[in-house]
Amino acid sequence: MIERATAFAPASVGNVGVGFDLIGHAIDGPGDKVTAIRTDRPGVVIEAIEGVITKLPLEADRNTAGRAVQSLLEAQQPGFGVKLRINKGIPLGSGLGGSAASATAALVAANALLPEPLPIEKLYPHALVGEAVASGSVHGDNVGPQLIGGLVMATRDRLISIPVPDGVHAAIVHPDHIVETRAARESLTEPYPIATVVRHHTHLAEFLSGCFRNDIELIRSGLNDVLVEPRRAGLIPGFAEVKQAALDNGALGASISGAGPSVFGWFSDHDSAQIAGQAMIMAFASVGLPAQAWISPVTSPGARLMEQRP
Amino acid sequence: MIERATAFAPASVGNVGVGFDLIGHAIDGPGDKVTAIRTDRPGVVIEAIEGVITKLPLEADRNTAGRAVQSLLEAQQPGFGVKLRINKGIPLGSGLGGSAASATAALVAANALLPEPLPIEKLYPHALVGEAVASGSVHGDNVGPQLIGGLVMATRDRLISIPVPDGVHAAIVHPDHIVETRAARESLTEPYPIATVVRHHTHLAEFLSGCFRNDIELIRSGLNDVLVEPRRAGLIPGFAEVKQAALDNGALGASISGAGPSVFGWFSDHDSAQIAGQAMIMAFASVGLPAQAWISPVTSPGARLMEQRP
Repeated sequence: MIERATAFAPASVGNVGVGFDLIGHAIDGPGDKVTAIRTDRPGVVIEAIEGVITKLPLEADRNTAGRAVQSLLEAQQPGFGVKLRINKGIPLGSGLGGSAASATAALVAANALLPEPLPIEKLYPHALVGEAVASGSVHGDNVGPQLIGGLVMATRDRLISIPVPDGVHAAIVHPDHIVETRAARESLTEPYPIATVVRHHTHLAEFLSGCFRNDIELIRSGLNDVLVEPRRAGLIPGFAEVKQAALDNGALGASISGAGPSVFGWFSDHDSAQIAGQAMIMAFASVGLPAQAWISPVTSPGARLMEQRP
Repeated sequence: MIERATAFAPASVGNVGVGFDLIGHAIDGPGDKVTAIRTDRPGVVIEAIEGVITKLPLEADRNTAGRAVQSLLEAQQPGFGVKLRINKGIPLGSGLGGSAASATAALVAANALLPEPLPIEKLYPHALVGEAVASGSVHGDNVGPQLIGGLVMATRDRLISIPVPDGVHAAIVHPDHIVETRAARESLTEPYPIATVVRHHTHLAEFLSGCFRNDIELIRSGLNDVLVEPRRAGLIPGFAEVKQAALDNGALGASISGAGPSVFGWFSDHDSAQIAGQAMIMAFASVGLPAQAWISPVTSPGARLMEQRP
């Protein structure tokens, strides 16, 4: 019987521009680590939160990791409780799925303690319960790719892997600026005319078809968010300049990661992503924001166990 | 040199529920036939319109077939004119792409008269010009599949074939009732809240992914139009009953073809489509509308030359 397990969950690009609340991909870069420890007392206790951010609720049912593991234990009734130690590697409010990653890592760690651990996809409903604590809505575009890796379409009840042409890399640039997820959602309250919806769904269809057909030019045509980005761009200082820097350096498309302020671009290969990432950092610097960049294959791995002990 | 050519273009299911103005598929059933004849006088003349409907403009630039061929001749400058004889097999205002089919058949016939006929995909921009005469907007979800056959995503500048699982058939039921395309479009003027757009794009993404992954259950999950159908269902007497008849008989999904009043359902095989088609006819009969049904593979062929003479 495993008494203690530690798991890592990667950051992720939520929405991927055209797949609002639906599509995301894992990032090979920062992530959260969670250690789960068996306790005799039933229920979930958050013992410690360390790392890049520590001002998070310690009450298990107000914490994404705690709530997710509560949901798992309620369903599995293993006859023991779980103590969690959370190490945050992803800044909150960055648009990189930070609250989702704590839930995902906690689930993968706690799952290892079960007498018969579930297949990783079966953790998805519990990850959604955790994610909802932070965002106030149920959407799996971060926990989905964080669980199974790569580019993922996350519906309410299913995770579907989307293939990606070989070599496609993302540059993800995170400026030192906070956008509140809830505030970003309020920008979307004004309804949309049918013409915008049709432009949007055409782009999404091109993007998906391009991925399935291994057609870079179709991805380029589709990776253009006319739905959410125009409403949220104003919340990110320098967004237009950063996007332009990505496009000027060969991006297939560039947009906001999650609710921002991180900005991502997709590129046909690693080197162009790396060069563009530098240009995107410079563009943020031009409006006075320090920023850091990660270069990652879009098909990066999902959460994994790092250590387990009997 | 070919002096006279006759082409057939099939009817089509426009929108296919979740792909408003974007996705359509050819029908193996009714169609329009157009004969194109070389004339010394430049320009396009509509000589005759025969068949199921004849009250259409004879002025070439107000007729979808005439306008499409004008566009082709303007681009190709072959040094001759074209006379068209149109035989309508598709009722207008049926939602089966009748005006598009005249344009498509006319283009395929006129193309055969050129010294070097274009590949069929190159006729697409001219077909869009023709289609716009009837609908007042540029959308290729009928002319696209009518040109190249099968299930097609038609963007402004490209036709993309979408694979369909083996055996999938449509039942298409046309009641004796007229819905004006322009009136149907007016039902869409009220803008859409983001939650509806997200439900809609999730369905579209499931539908497309299901087609590419050969996953019938994903198609079933996605083939559910929450965008347009709720606004237009009231324009079709008995729509709810007809849709229910399709679903009760195993449909993967059912919705309005084009602007209606025709209703289509998708089924995993021919026999269930045939049985459901009868039930759908009965449902229209229950509200006093006579109707006819076609059963067709979704991967039906597009337009083709029937005859050409020097």
